[in-house]
Amino acid sequence: MRRPTIMDIAKAAGVSKGAVSYALNDRPGVSKATRARILAIAHDLGWAPSSTARALSPGGRVGALGLVVDRPAHSLGVEPFFMQLVSGIEAELAATGMDLLLQVTEDADAELAVYRRWAAERRVDGVILVDLRVDDARVALVEDLALPAVVLGGPDGAGTLPCLFSDDAASMREVVHYLAALGHERIAHVCGPGDLVHSRVRSAAFERAAAEAGLHQAFTIEADYTGEAGTRTTRKLLARSDRPTALVYDNDLMAVAGLGVAREMGVDVPSRLSIVAWEDSVLCQLVRPSLTAVSRDVPFCGGEVARMLALAVAAEPLEPREAPRGELHPRASTGPRRA
Amino acid sequence: MRRPTIMDIAKAAGVSKGAVSYALNDRPGVSKATRARILAIAHDLGWAPSSTARALSPGGRVGALGLVVDRPAHSLGVEPFFMQLVSGIEAELAATGMDLLLQVTEDADAELAVYRRWAAERRVDGVILVDLRVDDARVALVEDLALPAVVLGGPDGAGTLPCLFSDDAASMREVVHYLAALGHERIAHVCGPGDLVHSRVRSAAFERAAAEAGLHQAFTIEADYTGEAGTRTTRKLLARSDRPTALVYDNDLMAVAGLGVAREMGVDVPSRLSIVAWEDSVLCQLVRPSLTAVSRDVPFCGGEVARMLALAVAAEPLEPREAPRGELHPRASTGPRRA
Repeated sequence: MRRPTIMDIAKAAGVSKGAVSYALNDRPGVSKATRARILAIAHDLGWAPSSTARALSPGGRVGALGLVVDRPAHSLGVEPFFMQLVSGIEAELAATGMDLLLQVTEDADAELAVYRRWAAERRVDGVILVDLRVDDARVALVEDLALPAVVLGGPDGAGTLPCLFSDDAASMREVVHYLAALGHERIAHVCGPGDLVHSRVRSAAFERAAAEAGLHQAFTIEADYTGEAGTRTTRKLLARSDRPTALVYDNDLMAVAGLGVAREMGVDVPSRLSIVAWEDSVLCQLVRPSLTAVSRDVPFCGGEVARMLALAVAAEPLEPREAPRGELHPRASTGPRRA
Repeated sequence: MRRPTIMDIAKAAGVSKGAVSYALNDRPGVSKATRARILAIAHDLGWAPSSTARALSPGGRVGALGLVVDRPAHSLGVEPFFMQLVSGIEAELAATGMDLLLQVTEDADAELAVYRRWAAERRVDGVILVDLRVDDARVALVEDLALPAVVLGGPDGAGTLPCLFSDDAASMREVVHYLAALGHERIAHVCGPGDLVHSRVRSAAFERAAAEAGLHQAFTIEADYTGEAGTRTTRKLLARSDRPTALVYDNDLMAVAGLGVAREMGVDVPSRLSIVAWEDSVLCQLVRPSLTAVSRDVPFCGGEVARMLALAVAAEPLEPREAPRGELHPRASTGPRRA
């Protein structure tokens, strides 16, 4: 199953590797006759036609999908979510020989510029959009560029694009009712940036569930997913005279930061403070006490979104699909409110 | 500075987006005359020539670099090193409009197959090799494929390939002498897989520095960088009757796992056990006590290795380069050995 190398072709043709490279790359340096002979041998050995040549052929594909991640680099390095997602995408693509183009951008405008360039230069067959924002300019842009795309998120805000969404509201309800059952009333929800659709969905669900459970002292406070924001926000919350007895964080990194602050301020977890992390990860399991978390199969979501994008590239009609719901995994960081 | 979209061209030409797409992609569906008119307008608007077309032109480049990461997906998701590295590479590439192709593979053979495919299909102009192994088959392969490559690591084992290395031996010596100065004698070094060149370099340096300092009870134990291995190995070490008073871990994830085990077993850090993590990260700073760590500028290394690869692709001769040395950042997890 091994693909032929330049060396294999050189040996079979009785020429140098350089000559093979010139011939295959259509560069000067070999005679027309030699070039023709090398190309014929390469063909016989099953030398794969260049993906670039395929892309130029009628109906051809580039054989690559694109993912742009628009988050601060230092946060990206620590938060497991993205690499888990990438792992899932890669596992799906490995079977098909497709490649993943990854870009990390510093802001939303830079992200839009990447899609324009990819479309203009035909770098990818389609893109996966993550971290859907309210009134997201990317949705209109990829529609305008006629660039196939699948949204991880939605369905609200995904426009006409196919999407893989999860019922975050149901998961949040489970978290709030669990904490209420443990006797907690003053619960704070530390959410991600407020312009993200899923932040709004979770915050709205948190408030609705708190109202259902009669928790009138529950509230949401906005942060930005970084460890620094988790640290700063938790210090403020624990310094209040009416400090919360339970905290729900929208990612694992902020939750780990919050656990560190609780220790630093001498607030015992879980006897004085319960902590729930939204995205479960090895991180949640490694710290002590281990963190109660909402667990989703992120690699599965990566694979599913890649499968959907392959269909979208083939111009198949796609309905929104629902990912398996995040489920609460109680661990050592939650317990009954002390009377 | 906005690149023209298909919509822009369609408006200017007074045709549908579909017609523009057919014309630009050289597909049937528009007349010859219309196609010519659309292409002329696209040219006037500055429509970028397709990268695939450029790649096929003599001397053309694909405009993409490749990185294959061969580690278990669940470890990859948590260890900050790779995303930090990718961030640094991306920051360098962003200026040049180059793309990064990322692949995650499950074993060394799959990794070799990716380089063969990338070379055969001309997907990338060059590749970055990380996690150099002893007698690494990748070095000979990329030489054979005539695929430009730069090794992050070496210089031992990098063959004729240019490399960006760091003096891990000097950093390890600093760690051992620091712990010796704190009075530690039973120091265990929890290293990464033994077939990695940098694991061997660090382990050899650890043993040499321990001998220099007269620490005859120091030893190295092999693990695999995962949190699970960190947990398991630390439990064994702390269960010994002559348990170590200081542990040096070859990555942050194992160190965080070790800290968790120490707490679980009631071994106070740092009064009863000192912990040093090799790769510093936000993770080391977020846990409590915060972890003393060997800190390198990983994003810088990513940028530098991308710059070197750009030169290698241009066939510039390259000497091995040395990255800034990792430096010890003492935090709360290390202290004097209790008498």
